[in-house]
Amino acid sequence: MGVSLEEMVAACRPYTRQGQLPGYIPALKQGDPSRLGACLLSCDGRLSQAGDWDVSFSIQSIVKPILLLQALLDNGVDTVRSHVGVEATGKPFDAINYTDQVLDSQHLNPMVNMGAIAVCSLIRGGSYQERFRRLLDLTRLLAGEESRIQVNEDVYRSEKANGSKNRALAYLLKTYGIIRDDVEDVLDCYFHACAISTDCGGLARIGCVLANQGRRPGSGEALVPPEYARFVNAILTTCGMYDGSGDFAVRVGVPAKSGVGGGIMAVAPGRMGIGIFSPALDPKGNSLAGTRLLELLSRELDLSIF
Amino acid sequence: MGVSLEEMVAACRPYTRQGQLPGYIPALKQGDPSRLGACLLSCDGRLSQAGDWDVSFSIQSIVKPILLLQALLDNGVDTVRSHVGVEATGKPFDAINYTDQVLDSQHLNPMVNMGAIAVCSLIRGGSYQERFRRLLDLTRLLAGEESRIQVNEDVYRSEKANGSKNRALAYLLKTYGIIRDDVEDVLDCYFHACAISTDCGGLARIGCVLANQGRRPGSGEALVPPEYARFVNAILTTCGMYDGSGDFAVRVGVPAKSGVGGGIMAVAPGRMGIGIFSPALDPKGNSLAGTRLLELLSRELDLSIF
Amino acid sequence: MGVSLEEMVAACRPYTRQGQLPGYIPALKQGDPSRLGACLLSCDGRLSQAGDWDVSFSIQSIVKPILLLQALLDNGVDTVRSHVGVEATGKPFDAINYTDQVLDSQHLNPMVNMGAIAVCSLIRGGSYQERFRRLLDLTRLLAGEESRIQVNEDVYRSEKANGSKNRALAYLLKTYGIIRDDVEDVLDCYFHACAISTDCGGLARIGCVLANQGRRPGSGEALVPPEYARFVNAILTTCGMYDGSGDFAVRVGVPAKSGVGGGIMAVAPGRMGIGIFSPALDPKGNSLAGTRLLELLSRELDLSIF
Amino acid sequence: MGVSLEEMVAACRPYTRQGQLPGYIPALKQGDPSRLGACLLSCDGRLSQAGDWDVSFSIQSIVKPILLLQALLDNGVDTVRSHVGVEATGKPFDAINYTDQVLDSQHLNPMVNMGAIAVCSLIRGGSYQERFRRLLDLTRLLAGEESRIQVNEDVYRSEKANGSKNRALAYLLKTYGIIRDDVEDVLDCYFHACAISTDCGGLARIGCVLANQGRRPGSGEALVPPEYARFVNAILTTCGMYDGSGDFAVRVGVPAKSGVGGGIMAVAPGRMGIGIFSPALDPKGNSLAGTRLLELLSRELDLSIF
Repeated sequence: MGVSLEEMVAACRPYTRQGQLPGYIPALKQGDPSRLGACLLSCDGRLSQAGDWDVSFSIQSIVKPILLLQALLDNGVDTVRSHVGVEATGKPFDAINYTDQVLDSQHLNPMVNMGAIAVCSLIRGGSYQERFRRLLDLTRLLAGEESRIQVNEDVYRSEKANGSKNRALAYLLKTYGIIRDDVEDVLDCYFHACAISTDCGGLARIGCVLANQGRRPGSGEALVPPEYARFVNAILTTCGMYDGSGDFAVRVGVPAKSGVGGGIMAVAPGRMGIGIFSPALDPKGNSLAGTRLLELLSRELDLSIF
Repeated sequence: MGVSLEEMVAACRPYTRQGQLPGYIPALKQGDPSRLGACLLSCDGRLSQAGDWDVSFSIQSIVKPILLLQALLDNGVDTVRSHVGVEATGKPFDAINYTDQVLDSQHLNPMVNMGAIAVCSLIRGGSYQERFRRLLDLTRLLAGEESRIQVNEDVYRSEKANGSKNRALAYLLKTYGIIRDDVEDVLDCYFHACAISTDCGGLARIGCVLANQGRRPGSGEALVPPEYARFVNAILTTCGMYDGSGDFAVRVGVPAKSGVGGGIMAVAPGRMGIGIFSPALDPKGNSLAGTRLLELLSRELDLSIF
Repeated sequence: MGVSLEEMVAACRPYTRQGQLPGYIPALKQGDPSRLGACLLSCDGRLSQAGDWDVSFSIQSIVKPILLLQALLDNGVDTVRSHVGVEATGKPFDAINYTDQVLDSQHLNPMVNMGAIAVCSLIRGGSYQERFRRLLDLTRLLAGEESRIQVNEDVYRSEKANGSKNRALAYLLKTYGIIRDDVEDVLDCYFHACAISTDCGGLARIGCVLANQGRRPGSGEALVPPEYARFVNAILTTCGMYDGSGDFAVRVGVPAKSGVGGGIMAVAPGRMGIGIFSPALDPKGNSLAGTRLLELLSRELDLSIF
Repeated sequence: MGVSLEEMVAACRPYTRQGQLPGYIPALKQGDPSRLGACLLSCDGRLSQAGDWDVSFSIQSIVKPILLLQALLDNGVDTVRSHVGVEATGKPFDAINYTDQVLDSQHLNPMVNMGAIAVCSLIRGGSYQERFRRLLDLTRLLAGEESRIQVNEDVYRSEKANGSKNRALAYLLKTYGIIRDDVEDVLDCYFHACAISTDCGGLARIGCVLANQGRRPGSGEALVPPEYARFVNAILTTCGMYDGSGDFAVRVGVPAKSGVGGGIMAVAPGRMGIGIFSPALDPKGNSLAGTRLLELLSRELDLSIF
């Protein structure tokens, strides 16, 4: 590329002023909105990083593809698809996917809150603590030992204490038998999952496994079956950026998942995984400067799958 | 590939019995539901065809990406995007994209009826007859002279005579100022567009232009700018198969557009264009056996972009 | 009553400044927004009038209960109820009563546009001109010879020329087979019906027939069966003031129907009919000062049925 | 009346076979679906009763007008109306009154679950136990000492244990700041309120206070201000029978409130209060035979307010 990653980060940093920190989770309101970092890891193991690549942040909704992978590993495609749909909902991330007073599991989508809460109940485990530990183990496996995967207890407590909307969604799932376990247990797993923290490198490494047919970049160790990596990439493309997925497909053109913690994990199949961090969000809940940086990266590196 | 195209068509033909001819357009009810044909055209110009590849059928909604291309050529991306959105609607192809008694142009999508009718009014021309002629010219340019691009007047008249739902959608667009011209004029263009007829080869050639960065396969002649081809491919991926787009992405993994005439145009970027015909539809309005055949083709030829 | 009707009209006239003339029908935008008139006709034939009682205006949606009466006279209760529902819709007067992409006739209501258009097709007659003439005859019968019942051709043409929303509603009714006749024919009857013009006296006389068990006040001549008068009064109470019906029931407490022409017809069962005119509307499309005047009248004359 | 109350109950008893006990609250599934009882109390103190008039049942949603009265007594009309709307919702009793991803307090209605839960938070009291005690005291005051007003602890526990839908509604209210207190505290008050038990006589006595301008029948003791009784009667008419209110207005024509426990409290203003019990419900959650009996009573006794 003619332009360096550092230069691209610098070019996009002014956009950080146009976004806003999310207001509804107190622990997320305290971030520094001017941050912007990026890490690129190619399938053959080359790493580039720039800007605030070493800042730790909570993964938030970027855990959703990992939740989905765990559910696929534990149940296979057919069982997962019988519990949640794969269509875009046409609605915001925290929407009630509810039509005409009926809740149809096929109207749920694992990339929005209601579907992801349902997916938590598909993870195998004796207790929801155990299920979460298995999810955390998978996250660490995908991100590799060098990634600093932790759980941010402050963020966890803040989300749990301010989780009325997610509770409403979960009790609705319970009403219609889509989750059968105790709602607070399921939500505790979900709130813990959202509070997993990492940095740009962690996201790039996970994204690169998805880009690399389920294999660890460099070593080529098989971590998840290639058909599951492909399944997740497809869903990331149609719904990973919430009701901004169509715009993202047109502008950037790669599978990606955003989180309200400011992260974006992008997957350029056969090419690289990308981790981005910039906590000021656009109105749909996606990192604003992060999306701009991905648009620039896609153009410079010709990453679009279209 | 180890399996021939002819064998794959044969393997999928039994699925034709599981679909249904569309009931709401009399002219489409008379087709032979057992037909299944396919044509593949690679970016370097190699052609394969099998089954009922030489049967002519009406293009129906597969004209939507061509309408979008014409609107992009006539107005550029920004103007088009100010008139229609690019997000999946989460609703059927003929849905009223109307929420809380308001019609927001950004909730329209050019791949579903309401958005496509709006796109008709973005084509340049002194009259709607002229606009349609320009659209037909573009279709012929993309499909090449060897494709039998015609207008099926029976289908046109049948749709015009049974177009109450599309009239409701168009008058709603008019109510909110999204179209300003005479509703019957706009619809006449739309009904004519849906009645364009071709065969599997025509769809494969158009699809291959999209797969080949806007260039004619073989000769490499530039027909549309590469960024417009990419724009259309992105939208085809997120919304081309209506509210079955997520399922199609997971199963097949390439940009595609279906029509209720039984056609599917698929785009394997950098690889090939594919034209499929099988008129028995699934409940979402997509060719049932055609989708199965594309699933098989994608697996055998490793076409998925994910 | 301690306060005269003239004094009550004077007390409420300042409210005319808080409303707005409807913007979407050019012919209605030209009215004088400061007008306020009232006419009361008791079941034993006593008449009071005050303010702008002698101004002529178009009846608009106040024709809906007359449409319903005609449909009841022509078909009986059971047939009418099989074509339209009787529940409040919870939505504005021109709403699309459409849920989850299905149109259920029981979600229509004859007091909102979509239901009233459907009711037009229940009137008996060889042509829609004849159906309208029968409706006009019934209106004149109910209002008596002394009422100046005419058709305002300017208003008719203005509504017909600006009727995109009603056309959208009618084509949707046609799509689902709820109306089977030509949409423009049905709408022509509907637009003519809305353009019937009268004054406060006309509304008071029609309202008094409904208040008087279907009999002409004074003479006691039976004009419509008492059970139909009661049926209409019940529907006026639950839905006559659109999505302001609950508020009107709480504040005023009598069956009533408003029109965007500024009229309100109120029915105090066993007591009187009331005609009000004041063309400046509240945001829900009901005459603002007219509603205030009815609130005052109800309190002074103890008219509430609750 | 030519027909005795006993004869009317007998005539309607066969309808008990057409209804169904509610499935979602285990404690209500055990009732005897063949029961039908009625009690009429006239404003001058005359009492008639027939059938299963002495069976005790849980009041369920019939507590909603009492909740509303308590909120009116504690806050006045303006404050109550700033927290909940008065329009019919056009949706079932347990609907999510949520449009386009926004919750507007004016779309709540105190006669459906979501609005009634919001009303609980308007009752004054140091704790929700105290608020419930005040509501229970008001219920006993309205029903008189002779009514057997109790709390059915089995029903309370059963509803609390199976209250996922109400929890979803309450957490949604909390999300939008319409309730600010602890959700489980508010719901505990609501579940207790629904579990208040009485018999037909209790409902007739409460209904008669509403029919008698807030005064105790017979003695004339003022229990609630007449304007509050009228306010409640108006809301019962437009929304008391859920999305069957329009049908009930047309068939019966008096303010009324049903509960899934099988009770209906009807109010014939100036005439009488009526208590009905028959636990087999129609699809909208209203007592099926009870509604038929009220239709017959209204015709025989000419009770319609229209």
